[in-house]
Amino acid sequence: MSEHAFDAAIALTGGTDNIFHGHTSPAYANMVGPFGGITAAQALNAVLQHPQRQGDPVALTVNFCAALADGPFDVTARPARTNRSTQHWVVELAQGGATVMTATAFTALRRETWRATEHTLPAVPAPADVPRPEGRGRVEWINRYEMRFVEGGFPAVWDGTDHGVSRSQLWMRDNPPRPLDFASLTAMADVFFPRIWRRRASPVPIGTVSMTVYFHADAAQLRTTGTGYLLGQAQAQAFRNGYFDQTAQLWNEAGELLVTSHQVVYYKE
Amino acid sequence: MSEHAFDAAIALTGGTDNIFHGHTSPAYANMVGPFGGITAAQALNAVLQHPQRQGDPVALTVNFCAALADGPFDVTARPARTNRSTQHWVVELAQGGATVMTATAFTALRRETWRATEHTLPAVPAPADVPRPEGRGRVEWINRYEMRFVEGGFPAVWDGTDHGVSRSQLWMRDNPPRPLDFASLTAMADVFFPRIWRRRASPVPIGTVSMTVYFHADAAQLRTTGTGYLLGQAQAQAFRNGYFDQTAQLWNEAGELLVTSHQVVYYKE
Repeated sequence: MSEHAFDAAIALTGGTDNIFHGHTSPAYANMVGPFGGITAAQALNAVLQHPQRQGDPVALTVNFCAALADGPFDVTARPARTNRSTQHWVVELAQGGATVMTATAFTALRRETWRATEHTLPAVPAPADVPRPEGRGRVEWINRYEMRFVEGGFPAVWDGTDHGVSRSQLWMRDNPPRPLDFASLTAMADVFFPRIWRRRASPVPIGTVSMTVYFHADAAQLRTTGTGYLLGQAQAQAFRNGYFDQTAQLWNEAGELLVTSHQVVYYKE
Repeated sequence: MSEHAFDAAIALTGGTDNIFHGHTSPAYANMVGPFGGITAAQALNAVLQHPQRQGDPVALTVNFCAALADGPFDVTARPARTNRSTQHWVVELAQGGATVMTATAFTALRRETWRATEHTLPAVPAPADVPRPEGRGRVEWINRYEMRFVEGGFPAVWDGTDHGVSRSQLWMRDNPPRPLDFASLTAMADVFFPRIWRRRASPVPIGTVSMTVYFHADAAQLRTTGTGYLLGQAQAQAFRNGYFDQTAQLWNEAGELLVTSHQVVYYKE
């Protein structure tokens, strides 16, 4: 069995003195540079592979400073503070000595407590009852995901209509399927196409500048979710003076909220 | 006229070689260490005062690594990447050489574009029609804010009832009033008492570990908002294995969404 494209893309070497080496992946190419979700997963993977790491990821913030050039990059992952059961990380990606991403991460040893999902899975049809789009994606990374849109799919026409709402809902998983882990959850938190395209049916230039991912899922839930679908929901709250935000949720088919995420995105016009 | 407690609290000295010096403020004391919002504002203030800063804040993420001890601290604010009209910052607070907070910030020169508030101001009574709580706060920083709860006020009884919902809505402003700016907006994004106390009416130990603030407001909106009230709304999406999240919005009385914010919080039991 050959290696999954996602595993090949996030692979890092090195790791001594906090420095890891990676390479952009043509399989996850976007219009300019790679899909942001894969770069975020690479940043997290440096923490996951770090010999001093303790616990699982709870929070990750990545800041996209510049489009990555196709080619190698270095990731520096430094444990800034290690407490008894928690750890804070400062991460930086560089190409040719210039910073292309900054990030912070928080990992923790988790134990069972009282629990509740307050933002519950919306009433949506099952994945099998939602058609899978035909044809190939306009950019390569789109082909790495199976996306079945329940609501708010990619605009069929760019007629500039203000739809008044930017919400999308879709069932998603890796294509081909791959057992879920923290790295793939990170990438999936960035799968949503830009909310301003959804809201205005206008393909204005955009670029994510910062994304935060909160991992509610623990390792046991990742195992039981396996290669099942996730229901992703994303919606903007405000668009103003060149930046809009997006709030997103990812549930598994059992209705467990695995991830909540937020990002702020540059837009032109 | 004497200096406002908020200005005194966030004051920093130094600034050469990216290093600023600050001091915790008894006026913003919490149960253990200072109110997190004031520490976040101090971290942002190092960016705001930095001689190389360009543009206004769009995104800020702060990670609380340890409770601050009463006393001095150092803030290091480094411009990791400066583009034509945007800038990425890496910030760290330390006491006695140990990291107590890590942060990243994004600033940008903003220009007018198409705009929309998609998450609109909820239907709530005007500030004057909502009673102001009597008595002093249990911790000192509470007295630095005027908080008029529309919904989901501080639990009157700790009877452990699961209320099934964690949402709070309140009109807030500095006490005494102070014209709004990016630093005070940052602190106000952290004003909400822990969602798990609201949901379960149980005072379990808690601590914010990471908070992200997206600034939709520009300088002109801050000026017109002035010393007016902000409507704050906060709600958790999931509680699991020691951590819950909170999503929050701050609107001005004109219904403009000035800030969206998110945080992840440790809880015990």
